[in-house]
Amino acid sequence: MNPQNVSSKPPVGAAAGRKPRADGVRSRQAILHAAANLATTRGLEALSIGELAEHIGMSKSGLYAHFKSKEELELATIETAIEIFEREVLVPAGKSSGSLDRVQALADAFLGHLERRVFPGGCFFAAVSAQLAANPGRARDRVVGMLQQWQEQFVAALHQAVEAGALSSNTEIDQTVFEITAMLLRANFNWILTGDRGALDQARAGIHHVLKRVAGPAGRNGRPKRAGSSRGRT
Amino acid sequence: MNPQNVSSKPPVGAAAGRKPRADGVRSRQAILHAAANLATTRGLEALSIGELAEHIGMSKSGLYAHFKSKEELELATIETAIEIFEREVLVPAGKSSGSLDRVQALADAFLGHLERRVFPGGCFFAAVSAQLAANPGRARDRVVGMLQQWQEQFVAALHQAVEAGALSSNTEIDQTVFEITAMLLRANFNWILTGDRGALDQARAGIHHVLKRVAGPAGRNGRPKRAGSSRGRT
Repeated sequence: MNPQNVSSKPPVGAAAGRKPRADGVRSRQAILHAAANLATTRGLEALSIGELAEHIGMSKSGLYAHFKSKEELELATIETAIEIFEREVLVPAGKSSGSLDRVQALADAFLGHLERRVFPGGCFFAAVSAQLAANPGRARDRVVGMLQQWQEQFVAALHQAVEAGALSSNTEIDQTVFEITAMLLRANFNWILTGDRGALDQARAGIHHVLKRVAGPAGRNGRPKRAGSSRGRT
Repeated sequence: MNPQNVSSKPPVGAAAGRKPRADGVRSRQAILHAAANLATTRGLEALSIGELAEHIGMSKSGLYAHFKSKEELELATIETAIEIFEREVLVPAGKSSGSLDRVQALADAFLGHLERRVFPGGCFFAAVSAQLAANPGRARDRVVGMLQQWQEQFVAALHQAVEAGALSSNTEIDQTVFEITAMLLRANFNWILTGDRGALDQARAGIHHVLKRVAGPAGRNGRPKRAGSSRGRT
Protein backbone atom coordinates (compact mmCIF):
# COMPACT_ATOMS: atom_id res chain seq x y z
CA MET A 1 0.00 0.00 0.00
CA ASN A 2 1.45 3.30 -1.05
CA PRO A 3 -0.13 6.45 0.33
CA GLN A 4 1.24 8.46 -2.61
CA ASN A 5 -1.16 6.61 -4.85
CA VAL A 6 -4.01 8.65 -3.61
CA SER A 7 -2.76 11.69 -1.73
CA SER A 8 -2.29 13.89 -4.81
CA LYS A 9 -5.37 12.72 -6.56
CA PRO A 10 -7.01 14.67 -9.39
CA PRO A 11 -10.74 15.08 -9.53
CA VAL A 12 -12.40 11.75 -10.12
CA GLY A 13 -13.45 11.27 -13.68
CA ALA A 14 -11.12 14.01 -14.86
CA ALA A 15 -8.66 11.72 -16.57
CA ALA A 16 -11.22 10.02 -18.77
CA GLY A 17 -8.95 7.66 -20.58
CA ARG A 18 -7.63 9.04 -23.82
CA LYS A 19 -4.71 10.94 -22.30
CA PRO A 20 -0.95 10.46 -22.79
CA ARG A 21 1.05 8.10 -20.63
CA ALA A 22 2.14 10.76 -18.12
CA ASP A 23 -1.48 10.84 -17.08
CA GLY A 24 -1.61 7.07 -16.78
CA VAL A 25 -0.87 6.93 -13.06
CA ARG A 26 -3.27 9.72 -12.33
CA SER A 27 -5.86 8.09 -14.49
CA ARG A 28 -5.47 4.83 -12.60
CA GLN A 29 -5.88 6.69 -9.32
CA ALA A 30 -9.00 8.41 -10.57
CA ILE A 31 -10.44 5.13 -11.77
CA LEU A 32 -9.79 3.44 -8.45
CA HIS A 33 -11.22 6.30 -6.44
CA ALA A 34 -14.36 6.15 -8.55
CA ALA A 35 -14.43 2.37 -8.10
CA ALA A 36 -14.13 2.66 -4.32
CA ASN A 37 -16.96 5.18 -4.24
CA LEU A 38 -19.13 3.05 -6.49
CA ALA A 39 -18.48 -0.06 -4.39
CA THR A 40 -19.97 1.64 -1.32
CA THR A 41 -23.28 2.27 -3.03
CA ARG A 42 -23.53 -0.62 -5.48
CA GLY A 43 -21.29 -3.29 -3.99
CA LEU A 44 -18.04 -4.80 -5.21
CA GLU A 45 -20.14 -7.39 -6.97
CA ALA A 46 -21.57 -4.76 -9.28
CA LEU A 47 -18.11 -3.48 -10.07
CA SER A 48 -17.81 -5.00 -13.50
CA ILE A 49 -15.25 -3.45 -15.79
CA GLY A 50 -18.01 -2.61 -18.23
CA GLU A 51 -20.14 -0.87 -15.65
CA LEU A 52 -17.23 1.02 -14.14
CA ALA A 53 -16.18 2.14 -17.62
CA GLU A 54 -19.64 3.50 -18.23
CA HIS A 55 -19.72 5.17 -14.80
CA ILE A 56 -16.48 7.09 -15.36
CA GLY A 57 -17.01 7.70 -19.05
CA MET A 58 -14.13 5.57 -20.28
CA SER A 59 -13.93 2.81 -22.86
CA LYS A 60 -13.89 -0.78 -21.67
CA SER A 61 -10.67 -1.35 -23.59
CA GLY A 62 -9.13 1.63 -21.81
CA LEU A 63 -10.03 0.10 -18.47
CA TYR A 64 -8.76 -3.32 -19.52
CA ALA A 65 -5.40 -1.67 -20.12
CA HIS A 66 -5.31 -0.88 -16.40
CA PHE A 67 -6.80 -4.06 -14.95
CA LYS A 68 -6.56 -7.49 -16.45
CA SER A 69 -9.34 -9.06 -14.44
CA LYS A 70 -12.25 -8.26 -12.16
CA GLU A 71 -10.29 -9.69 -9.23
CA GLU A 72 -7.39 -7.36 -9.93
CA LEU A 73 -9.78 -4.42 -10.12
CA GLU A 74 -11.41 -5.46 -6.83
CA LEU A 75 -8.09 -5.83 -5.02
CA ALA A 76 -6.82 -2.49 -6.31
CA THR A 77 -10.11 -0.87 -5.30
CA ILE A 78 -9.79 -2.28 -1.78
CA GLU A 79 -6.20 -1.01 -1.52
CA THR A 80 -7.38 2.42 -2.58
CA ALA A 81 -10.17 2.37 -0.01
CA ILE A 82 -7.67 1.36 2.68
CA GLU A 83 -5.40 4.26 1.72
CA ILE A 84 -8.29 6.68 1.88
CA PHE A 85 -9.34 5.30 5.26
CA GLU A 86 -5.79 5.61 6.57
CA ARG A 87 -5.52 9.18 5.37
CA GLU A 88 -8.96 10.26 6.57
CA VAL A 89 -9.28 8.29 9.81
CA LEU A 90 -6.11 6.59 11.05
CA VAL A 91 -3.63 9.40 10.42
CA PRO A 92 -5.70 12.11 12.15
CA ALA A 93 -6.46 9.76 15.08
CA GLY A 94 -2.79 8.86 15.33
CA LYS A 95 -1.99 12.41 16.35
CA SER A 96 -3.76 11.90 19.66
CA SER A 97 -1.68 11.17 22.72
CA GLY A 98 -2.82 7.57 23.15
CA SER A 99 -4.89 5.79 25.81
CA LEU A 100 -8.47 7.09 26.12
CA ASP A 101 -7.60 10.10 23.99
CA ARG A 102 -6.75 7.68 21.21
CA VAL A 103 -9.98 5.74 21.66
CA GLN A 104 -11.98 8.95 21.38
CA ALA A 105 -9.88 10.20 18.50
CA LEU A 106 -10.37 6.95 16.57
CA ALA A 107 -14.11 7.11 17.14
CA ASP A 108 -14.32 10.80 16.30
CA ALA A 109 -12.23 10.35 13.16
CA PHE A 110 -14.43 7.48 12.03
CA LEU A 111 -17.64 9.41 12.67
CA GLY A 112 -16.08 12.46 11.02
CA HIS A 113 -15.29 10.55 7.85
CA LEU A 114 -18.92 9.43 7.73
CA GLU A 115 -20.15 12.98 8.24
CA ARG A 116 -17.83 14.33 5.52
CA ARG A 117 -19.07 11.57 3.23
CA VAL A 118 -15.57 10.50 2.32
CA PHE A 119 -17.33 7.57 0.65
CA PRO A 120 -20.87 8.17 -0.59
CA GLY A 121 -22.06 4.88 0.95
CA GLY A 122 -20.54 5.39 4.40
CA CYS A 123 -17.91 3.01 5.70
CA PHE A 124 -16.34 1.22 2.72
CA PHE A 125 -15.60 -1.91 4.71
CA ALA A 126 -19.10 -2.21 6.12
CA ALA A 127 -20.50 -1.74 2.64
CA VAL A 128 -18.48 -4.49 0.98
CA SER A 129 -18.24 -7.01 3.81
CA ALA A 130 -21.57 -8.77 3.38
CA GLN A 131 -20.77 -9.71 -0.19
CA LEU A 132 -17.12 -10.49 0.46
CA ALA A 133 -18.07 -12.72 3.37
CA ALA A 134 -19.67 -15.13 0.96
CA ASN A 135 -16.69 -15.16 -1.37
CA PRO A 136 -13.53 -16.48 0.27
CA GLY A 137 -10.43 -15.23 -1.46
CA ARG A 138 -7.80 -12.52 -1.51
CA ALA A 139 -10.28 -9.63 -1.50
CA ARG A 140 -12.08 -10.97 1.55
CA ASP A 141 -8.81 -11.71 3.34
CA ARG A 142 -7.54 -8.21 2.69
CA VAL A 143 -10.67 -6.62 4.14
CA VAL A 144 -10.69 -8.95 7.16
CA GLY A 145 -7.04 -8.06 7.74
CA MET A 146 -7.81 -4.36 7.56
CA LEU A 147 -10.68 -4.74 10.03
CA GLN A 148 -8.38 -6.59 12.43
CA GLN A 149 -5.87 -3.78 12.12
CA TRP A 150 -8.63 -1.27 12.88
CA GLN A 151 -9.67 -3.19 15.99
CA GLU A 152 -6.06 -3.52 17.13
CA GLN A 153 -5.85 0.26 17.25
CA PHE A 154 -8.56 0.19 19.89
CA VAL A 155 -7.00 -2.77 21.68
CA ALA A 156 -3.66 -0.97 21.99
CA ALA A 157 -5.25 2.26 23.19
CA LEU A 158 -7.41 0.46 25.76
CA HIS A 159 -4.39 -1.43 27.10
CA GLN A 160 -2.66 1.91 27.57
CA ALA A 161 -5.73 3.22 29.38
CA VAL A 162 -5.73 0.21 31.73
CA GLU A 163 -2.04 0.68 32.45
CA ALA A 164 -2.63 4.35 33.19
CA GLY A 165 -5.47 3.50 35.57
CA ALA A 166 -8.01 5.32 33.45
CA LEU A 167 -9.76 1.99 32.91
CA SER A 168 -10.27 -0.75 35.44
CA SER A 169 -7.67 -3.50 35.54
CA ASN A 170 -10.56 -5.94 35.08
CA THR A 171 -11.51 -4.44 31.73
CA GLU A 172 -12.24 -7.13 29.16
CA ILE A 173 -10.46 -5.49 26.29
CA ASP A 174 -11.96 -7.51 23.44
CA GLN A 175 -15.48 -7.07 24.76
CA THR A 176 -14.94 -3.35 25.16
CA VAL A 177 -13.63 -3.05 21.60
CA PHE A 178 -16.65 -5.01 20.40
CA GLU A 179 -19.01 -2.60 22.12
CA ILE A 180 -17.21 0.54 20.97
CA THR A 181 -17.05 -0.59 17.35
CA ALA A 182 -20.68 -1.70 17.61
CA MET A 183 -21.64 1.92 18.22
CA LEU A 184 -19.63 3.03 15.19
CA LEU A 185 -21.11 0.39 12.91
CA ARG A 186 -24.61 1.20 14.12
CA ALA A 187 -24.06 4.89 13.47
CA ASN A 188 -22.86 4.11 9.95
CA PHE A 189 -25.95 2.02 9.33
CA ASN A 190 -28.37 4.76 10.39
CA TRP A 191 -26.37 7.52 8.79
CA ILE A 192 -26.35 6.06 5.31
CA LEU A 193 -30.02 5.13 5.45
CA THR A 194 -31.35 8.35 6.93
CA GLY A 195 -28.58 10.98 6.82
CA ASP A 196 -29.60 11.83 10.38
CA ARG A 197 -26.68 13.25 12.36
CA GLY A 198 -28.41 12.12 15.53
CA ALA A 199 -26.98 8.65 14.88
CA LEU A 200 -23.46 10.04 15.13
CA ASP A 201 -24.29 11.62 18.48
CA GLN A 202 -25.91 8.40 19.68
CA ALA A 203 -22.70 6.57 18.87
CA ARG A 204 -20.67 9.11 20.84
CA ALA A 205 -23.04 8.74 23.81
CA GLY A 206 -22.88 4.95 23.51
CA ILE A 207 -19.08 4.96 23.54
CA HIS A 208 -19.14 7.26 26.54
CA HIS A 209 -21.37 4.73 28.33
CA VAL A 210 -19.06 1.86 27.46
CA LEU A 211 -15.98 3.70 28.70
CA LYS A 212 -17.75 4.81 31.86
CA ARG A 213 -18.65 1.21 32.62
CA VAL A 214 -15.01 0.14 32.54
CA ALA A 215 -13.58 3.30 34.09
CA GLY A 216 -10.72 2.76 36.51
CA PRO A 217 -9.64 4.69 39.61
CA ALA A 218 -8.15 7.50 37.53
CA GLY A 219 -11.17 7.69 35.28
CA ARG A 220 -14.01 7.69 37.80
CA ASN A 221 -14.09 11.40 38.52
CA GLY A 222 -16.97 12.18 36.25
CA ARG A 223 -16.74 11.01 32.68
CA PRO A 224 -13.79 9.44 30.97
CA LYS A 225 -11.55 12.03 29.38
CA ARG A 226 -12.45 12.99 25.86
CA ALA A 227 -10.32 13.52 22.83
CA GLY A 228 -8.79 16.95 22.94
CA SER A 229 -8.05 16.86 26.64
CA SER A 230 -4.41 16.23 27.43
CA ARG A 231 -3.75 13.09 29.41
CA GLY A 232 -0.03 13.60 29.95
CA ARG A 233 2.03 10.43 29.81
CA THR A 234 0.35 7.51 28.04
CA MET B 1 -47.84 -5.05 5.81
CA ASN B 2 -50.26 -7.83 5.25
CA PRO B 3 -48.84 -11.27 5.97
CA GLN B 4 -51.35 -12.71 3.58
CA ASN B 5 -49.70 -10.81 0.79
CA VAL B 6 -47.35 -13.61 0.09
CA SER B 7 -48.34 -16.61 2.11
CA SER B 8 -51.43 -17.18 0.06
CA LYS B 9 -50.79 -14.79 -2.75
CA PRO B 10 -51.76 -15.73 -6.28
CA PRO B 11 -48.77 -15.75 -8.54
CA VAL B 12 -48.03 -12.33 -9.93
CA GLY B 13 -48.17 -12.31 -13.69
CA ALA B 14 -51.21 -14.58 -13.57
CA ALA B 15 -49.29 -17.76 -12.92
CA ALA B 16 -47.27 -17.67 -16.08
CA GLY B 17 -50.06 -19.15 -18.09
CA ARG B 18 -48.84 -22.63 -18.68
CA LYS B 19 -48.71 -24.06 -15.17
CA PRO B 20 -51.54 -25.01 -12.89
CA ARG B 21 -52.21 -22.45 -10.22
CA ALA B 22 -50.90 -24.46 -7.26
CA ASP B 23 -47.52 -24.90 -8.89
CA GLY B 24 -47.42 -21.26 -9.77
CA VAL B 25 -47.70 -20.18 -6.15
CA ARG B 26 -45.08 -22.66 -5.03
CA SER B 27 -42.82 -21.69 -7.85
CA ARG B 28 -43.14 -18.02 -7.07
CA GLN B 29 -42.39 -18.63 -3.41
CA ALA B 30 -39.37 -20.73 -4.28
CA ILE B 31 -38.09 -18.05 -6.62
CA LEU B 32 -38.49 -15.33 -4.05
CA HIS B 33 -36.88 -17.36 -1.30
CA ALA B 34 -33.90 -17.98 -3.58
CA ALA B 35 -33.83 -14.30 -4.44
CA ALA B 36 -33.83 -13.27 -0.77
CA ASN B 37 -30.98 -15.66 -0.05
CA LEU B 38 -29.01 -14.46 -3.05
CA ALA B 39 -29.51 -10.82 -2.09
CA THR B 40 -27.78 -11.40 1.25
CA THR B 41 -24.60 -12.61 -0.39
CA ARG B 42 -24.57 -10.73 -3.68
CA GLY B 43 -26.73 -7.69 -3.02
CA LEU B 44 -30.07 -6.62 -4.42
CA GLU B 45 -28.13 -4.80 -7.11
CA ALA B 46 -26.86 -8.07 -8.49
CA LEU B 47 -30.37 -9.50 -8.55
CA SER B 48 -30.92 -9.25 -12.26
CA ILE B 49 -33.64 -11.41 -13.69
CA GLY B 50 -31.06 -13.10 -15.89
CA GLU B 51 -28.74 -13.92 -13.02
CA LEU B 52 -31.52 -15.13 -10.77
CA ALA B 53 -32.83 -17.33 -13.57
CA GLU B 54 -29.38 -18.88 -13.92
CA HIS B 55 -29.06 -19.29 -10.16
CA ILE B 56 -32.31 -21.21 -9.79
CA GLY B 57 -32.07 -23.03 -13.10
CA MET B 58 -35.07 -21.42 -14.73
CA SER B 59 -35.46 -19.69 -18.06
CA LYS B 60 -35.41 -15.91 -18.19
CA SER B 61 -38.76 -15.93 -19.95
CA GLY B 62 -40.16 -18.10 -17.15
CA LEU B 63 -39.02 -15.55 -14.61
CA TYR B 64 -40.34 -12.65 -16.66
CA ALA B 65 -43.74 -14.29 -16.44
CA HIS B 66 -43.55 -13.84 -12.66
CA PHE B 67 -41.98 -10.39 -12.49
CA LYS B 68 -42.39 -7.68 -15.02
CA SER B 69 -39.49 -5.56 -13.87
CA LYS B 70 -36.42 -5.61 -11.68
CA GLU B 71 -38.16 -3.24 -9.27
CA GLU B 72 -41.07 -5.62 -8.93
CA LEU B 73 -38.68 -8.49 -8.29
CA GLU B 74 -36.81 -6.42 -5.67
CA LEU B 75 -39.98 -5.42 -3.87
CA ALA B 76 -41.32 -8.97 -3.84
CA THR B 77 -37.95 -10.21 -2.59
CA ILE B 78 -38.02 -7.70 0.26
CA GLU B 79 -41.57 -8.75 1.19
CA THR B 80 -40.44 -12.35 1.27
CA ALA B 81 -37.45 -11.47 3.46
CA ILE B 82 -39.75 -9.58 5.83
CA GLU B 83 -42.05 -12.58 6.09
CA ILE B 84 -39.13 -14.87 6.82
CA PHE B 85 -37.84 -12.44 9.44
CA GLU B 86 -41.27 -12.22 11.03
CA ARG B 87 -41.60 -15.99 11.14
CA GLU B 88 -38.08 -16.67 12.38
CA VAL B 89 -37.54 -13.73 14.73
CA LEU B 90 -40.61 -11.67 15.55
CA VAL B 91 -43.11 -14.47 16.09
CA PRO B 92 -40.89 -16.48 18.48
CA ALA B 93 -39.94 -13.31 20.37
CA GLY B 94 -43.60 -12.33 20.58
CA LYS B 95 -44.26 -15.33 22.79
CA SER B 96 -42.26 -13.74 25.60
CA SER B 97 -44.12 -11.97 28.38
CA GLY B 98 -42.99 -8.45 27.46
CA SER B 99 -40.76 -5.92 29.20
CA LEU B 100 -37.15 -7.10 29.68
CA ASP B 101 -38.12 -10.63 28.76
CA ARG B 102 -39.23 -9.27 25.40
CA VAL B 103 -35.98 -7.35 24.94
CA GLN B 104 -33.98 -10.49 25.60
CA ALA B 105 -36.27 -12.61 23.48
CA LEU B 106 -35.96 -10.21 20.53
CA ALA B 107 -32.18 -10.21 20.84
CA ASP B 108 -31.99 -13.97 21.29
CA ALA B 109 -34.31 -14.58 18.36
CA PHE B 110 -32.23 -12.29 16.15
CA LEU B 111 -28.95 -13.95 17.16
CA GLY B 112 -30.59 -17.34 16.77
CA HIS B 113 -31.64 -16.61 13.21
CA LEU B 114 -28.04 -15.66 12.44
CA GLU B 115 -26.74 -18.83 14.02
CA ARG B 116 -29.24 -21.00 12.12
CA ARG B 117 -28.22 -19.20 8.94
CA VAL B 118 -31.78 -18.44 8.00
CA PHE B 119 -30.19 -16.28 5.30
CA PRO B 120 -26.75 -17.30 4.08
CA GLY B 121 -25.47 -13.72 4.32
CA GLY B 122 -26.72 -13.00 7.84
CA CYS B 123 -29.28 -10.28 8.44
CA PHE B 124 -31.10 -9.58 5.17
CA PHE B 125 -31.72 -5.93 6.03
CA ALA B 126 -28.13 -5.23 6.99
CA ALA B 127 -27.00 -6.88 3.77
CA VAL B 128 -29.16 -4.82 1.45
CA SER B 129 -29.22 -1.49 3.27
CA ALA B 130 -25.96 -0.03 2.02
CA GLN B 131 -27.04 -0.33 -1.58
CA LEU B 132 -30.63 0.67 -0.96
CA ALA B 133 -29.49 3.73 0.96
CA ALA B 134 -28.10 5.17 -2.25
CA ASN B 135 -31.26 4.46 -4.21
CA PRO B 136 -34.30 6.31 -2.89
CA GLY B 137 -37.49 4.58 -3.87
CA ARG B 138 -40.08 2.07 -2.80
CA ALA B 139 -37.59 -0.68 -2.00
CA ARG B 140 -35.57 1.58 0.28
CA ASP B 141 -38.70 2.93 1.96
CA ARG B 142 -39.97 -0.57 2.61
CA VAL B 143 -36.73 -1.62 4.29
CA VAL B 144 -36.51 1.59 6.32
CA GLY B 145 -40.11 1.00 7.45
CA MET B 146 -39.30 -2.55 8.46
CA LEU B 147 -36.27 -1.41 10.44
CA GLN B 148 -38.40 1.17 12.23
CA GLN B 149 -40.89 -1.52 13.09
CA TRP B 150 -38.06 -3.68 14.42
CA GLN B 151 -36.82 -0.85 16.62
CA GLU B 152 -40.33 -0.10 17.84
CA GLN B 153 -40.49 -3.61 19.25
CA PHE B 154 -37.60 -2.69 21.51
CA VAL B 155 -39.06 0.72 22.30
CA ALA B 156 -42.34 -0.82 23.44
CA ALA B 157 -40.63 -3.49 25.54
CA LEU B 158 -38.31 -0.96 27.18
CA HIS B 159 -41.24 1.32 28.02
CA GLN B 160 -42.90 -1.65 29.73
CA ALA B 161 -39.70 -2.30 31.64
CA VAL B 162 -39.55 1.31 32.82
CA GLU B 163 -43.17 1.15 33.92
CA ALA B 164 -42.47 -2.05 35.82
CA GLY B 165 -39.49 -0.48 37.56
CA ALA B 166 -37.09 -2.96 35.98
CA LEU B 167 -35.43 -0.03 34.23
CA SER B 168 -34.76 3.40 35.66
CA SER B 169 -37.38 6.05 35.01
CA ASN B 170 -34.54 8.16 33.54
CA THR B 171 -33.84 5.61 30.83
CA GLU B 172 -33.33 7.25 27.46
CA ILE B 173 -35.30 4.76 25.45
CA ASP B 174 -34.05 5.68 21.98
CA GLN B 175 -30.43 5.67 23.10
CA THR B 176 -30.89 2.32 24.78
CA VAL B 177 -32.45 0.86 21.64
CA PHE B 178 -29.56 2.27 19.62
CA GLU B 179 -27.05 0.53 21.88
CA ILE B 180 -28.88 -2.79 21.98
CA THR B 181 -29.33 -2.94 18.23
CA ALA B 182 -25.70 -1.85 17.83
CA MET B 183 -24.65 -5.07 19.56
CA LEU B 184 -26.86 -7.11 17.23
CA LEU B 185 -25.59 -5.42 14.09
CA ARG B 186 -21.99 -5.82 15.24
CA ALA B 187 -22.55 -9.50 15.91
CA ASN B 188 -24.01 -9.95 12.45
CA PHE B 189 -21.00 -8.23 10.91
CA ASN B 190 -18.47 -10.49 12.66
CA TRP B 191 -20.55 -13.59 12.24
CA ILE B 192 -20.87 -13.38 8.48
CA LEU B 193 -17.20 -12.51 8.03
CA THR B 194 -15.72 -15.06 10.40
CA GLY B 195 -18.45 -17.55 11.39
CA ASP B 196 -17.17 -17.14 14.95
CA ARG B 197 -19.92 -17.78 17.51
CA GLY B 198 -17.97 -15.66 19.96
CA ALA B 199 -19.48 -12.61 18.30
CA LEU B 200 -22.95 -13.77 19.27
CA ASP B 201 -21.85 -14.14 22.89
CA GLN B 202 -20.20 -10.73 22.79
CA ALA B 203 -23.49 -9.24 21.65
CA ARG B 204 -25.32 -10.94 24.52
CA ALA B 205 -22.77 -9.62 27.00
CA GLY B 206 -22.98 -6.16 25.45
CA ILE B 207 -26.76 -6.09 25.76
CA HIS B 208 -26.47 -7.26 29.36
CA HIS B 209 -24.14 -4.31 30.01
CA VAL B 210 -26.55 -1.87 28.39
CA LEU B 211 -29.51 -3.14 30.42
CA LYS B 212 -27.49 -3.14 33.62
CA ARG B 213 -26.57 0.48 33.04
CA VAL B 214 -30.22 1.52 32.87
CA ALA B 215 -31.50 -0.90 35.50
CA GLY B 216 -34.19 0.46 37.81
CA PRO B 217 -35.02 -0.32 41.43
CA ALA B 218 -36.66 -3.64 40.52
CA GLY B 219 -33.78 -4.62 38.23
CA ARG B 220 -30.78 -3.85 40.41
CA ASN B 221 -30.65 -7.11 42.30
CA GLY B 222 -27.96 -8.67 40.19
CA ARG B 223 -28.48 -8.77 36.48
CA PRO B 224 -31.57 -7.83 34.53
CA LYS B 225 -33.84 -10.78 34.04
CA ARG B 226 -33.17 -12.88 30.99
CA ALA B 227 -35.50 -14.39 28.48
CA GLY B 228 -36.92 -17.61 29.77
CA SER B 229 -37.41 -16.35 33.29
CA SER B 230 -40.99 -15.49 34.05
CA ARG B 231 -41.59 -11.89 34.92
CA GLY B 232 -45.26 -12.17 35.81
CA ARG B 233 -47.31 -9.10 35.00
CA THR B 234 -45.72 -6.76 32.49
